Amino acid sequence: MSYKNKITSPCLLLDEDKCKANIRKIAEKAKRNGMVFRPHFKTHVSLEIGQWFRGEGVEKITVSSLEMAEYFADEWKDITVAFPINILEIDRINFLAEKINLNIVIENHEAVTFLSEHLSSSVNAFIKIDAGNGRTGISFNDKTKIQHLIYELDECHLIHFDGFLCHAGNSYQARGKDEILSIHENYRKKLNELRSHFIEEYPDLKISVGDTPTCSQAEDFTWADEIRPGNFVFYDVMQWIIGSNLLDDIAVVMACPIVAKHKERNELVIHGGAIHFARDSRVHPFLDKVIFGLVVELSENGWSHPNHKDYYARMSQEHGVLHLSDETIDKYNVGDVIGVLPIHSCMTANLMKAYMTLNGKEISRM
Amino acid sequence: MSYKNKITSPCLLLDEDKCKANIRKIAEKAKRNGMVFRPHFKTHVSLEIGQWFRGEGVEKITVSSLEMAEYFADEWKDITVAFPINILEIDRINFLAEKINLNIVIENHEAVTFLSEHLSSSVNAFIKIDAGNGRTGISFNDKTKIQHLIYELDECHLIHFDGFLCHAGNSYQARGKDEILSIHENYRKKLNELRSHFIEEYPDLKISVGDTPTCSQAEDFTWADEIRPGNFVFYDVMQWIIGSNLLDDIAVVMACPIVAKHKERNELVIHGGAIHFARDSRVHPFLDKVIFGLVVELSENGWSHPNHKDYYARMSQEHGVLHLSDETIDKYNVGDVIGVLPIHSCMTANLMKAYMTLNGKEISRM
Repeated sequence: MSYKNKITSPCLLLDEDKCKANIRKIAEKAKRNGMVFRPHFKTHVSLEIGQWFRGEGVEKITVSSLEMAEYFADEWKDITVAFPINILEIDRINFLAEKINLNIVIENHEAVTFLSEHLSSSVNAFIKIDAGNGRTGISFNDKTKIQHLIYELDECHLIHFDGFLCHAGNSYQARGKDEILSIHENYRKKLNELRSHFIEEYPDLKISVGDTPTCSQAEDFTWADEIRPGNFVFYDVMQWIIGSNLLDDIAVVMACPIVAKHKERNELVIHGGAIHFARDSRVHPFLDKVIFGLVVELSENGWSHPNHKDYYARMSQEHGVLHLSDETIDKYNVGDVIGVLPIHSCMTANLMKAYMTLNGKEISRM
Repeated sequence: MSYKNKITSPCLLLDEDKCKANIRKIAEKAKRNGMVFRPHFKTHVSLEIGQWFRGEGVEKITVSSLEMAEYFADEWKDITVAFPINILEIDRINFLAEKINLNIVIENHEAVTFLSEHLSSSVNAFIKIDAGNGRTGISFNDKTKIQHLIYELDECHLIHFDGFLCHAGNSYQARGKDEILSIHENYRKKLNELRSHFIEEYPDLKISVGDTPTCSQAEDFTWADEIRPGNFVFYDVMQWIIGSNLLDDIAVVMACPIVAKHKERNELVIHGGAIHFARDSRVHPFLDKVIFGLVVELSENGWSHPNHKDYYARMSQEHGVLHLSDETIDKYNVGDVIGVLPIHSCMTANLMKAYMTLNGKEISRM
């Protein structure tokens, strides 16, 4: 059945073919580089979409919270929680550590001290390395501190030191492939240096990296052991602005009812605001305007390529104001449904709580 | 039982006393002005918090979607959906119109035409007036268009024309009481003029206004029939920057576990990011920096007044980076819980899905 007749309120459409193609592309890159593809599931957070990764041979995953790990733990037996471990959640950690192969992220000795006293099952631990992002982790330069933390981990018999984990979140500031590749090259050097320093004492240490821009655009990951990108599963306008993907790679679109038309100012008002899209915005590279999304035309088989003159201009809690070109606005009236490519698909999907495929099938998420 | 021992992951704390004081203040203002207080429930969206308004004599409410109206319809029998009616949701409209006194908002003739053919129960309709906000509604100046729409409503026997509804959302751009009062004076004049024009033909027409800044700061509403503010129930840092409230009036705070400490750059990393707070930010008026919240110290009885040197500086999906003064950072360690006043409480509460009172009691929401 067509999805179109089912839409009466804001709805997140998912193009299954585009999504599966995005998954396949990164899976094949991982295979070519002989490394583990451990996708971050924080974007889709769906058991059903998770199964699409199985088809590409994926067996290990990444999540961003223990709550998310619990959601996936019945189906996935090797999960990395790529967030500095929150020791207040020790009950959750112990529950998961008994059930699955749990990999945690450590960046301070307070956490190790606490865990060595309170862990009841074994876990693997990555040390979080800050290779330039400046959010969390120990600076790649601070080998003394890293060494000290490894010794502390070694002393705790329920924690196995697994290697170094890095998230080059600074790639989100990049604009275009060259800048993305330069960030990739920068963290590659730093992590390689770190590996060389520690490999003799810890011959099994792994290097785990992951951010959608560099994992999408860089080709050489032979030096790493695993990649953990997340957003690539859907992509979005923000990633297009960074240079990670084409607009036609974006696998999700918001379908929103039109509730008002103000032709005199080239505006449509949609039901679809900050509680549906989230508040993320970006400066459009050609328009030099802050936008909350790009407008597309919905059809039975998906949606059109966006016309850059048609964009989501202003946002309230439930309202969205779209600014459209003369040609586009004439196509629409109150009661029609219009498509908007989201700025940040992770946030939009988090708010929408479910997907509808182009066949009109609902896919649930956590 | 204390709330403090219950917190292991990000949690939205609610100070019931502050919240009830906020409600009482506006309720008394409405009484003094002899008008109906029809609070907007889009901020708290909680049946239980809704009952706190009953204590102040509130019997009629406002919501921002039909879905929200359905949530409240068992307990509230007079609900205004303050959003241009979405005709695709005709089944929801008819369901609600049969069950409660449903007030809808009209701003175009397409909706009236559709409703006159598809309504099965009676509704009241406000015409949305744009008195300067430029989002939805008919310009207060366009009396011909307004008159035409009233005639169309009159022709539909299931729709009763109720009056004019205005949301002065432009007050969110104000900074300080004088600017807020000037916006209030501006829309007061426009709506009074509109009333004078139509009152002879429609002697029962009502004027409904509502936005938190003007409803908080203006005193004279004798000229209006009802007010519909929403955010005032909790307030937030954004409303403080506008000039609606004091920081100590804010009734909600996020309590977040600390997962990393980087004293060398005066930063704490918390579990509490865009999926908990939402992405709203504002330029702090004294610091001249973009902030995502203000840091407070949590205690058994609530939280401290914020020190403006301690703020939420950077935000990711799950992470928050707090920038703290030397004095403050020394008080905290990994595993502690710290408080953050949200920029926009409506959005934060929407993501958090529940509240915890200072007695450790959970209050649910839609």
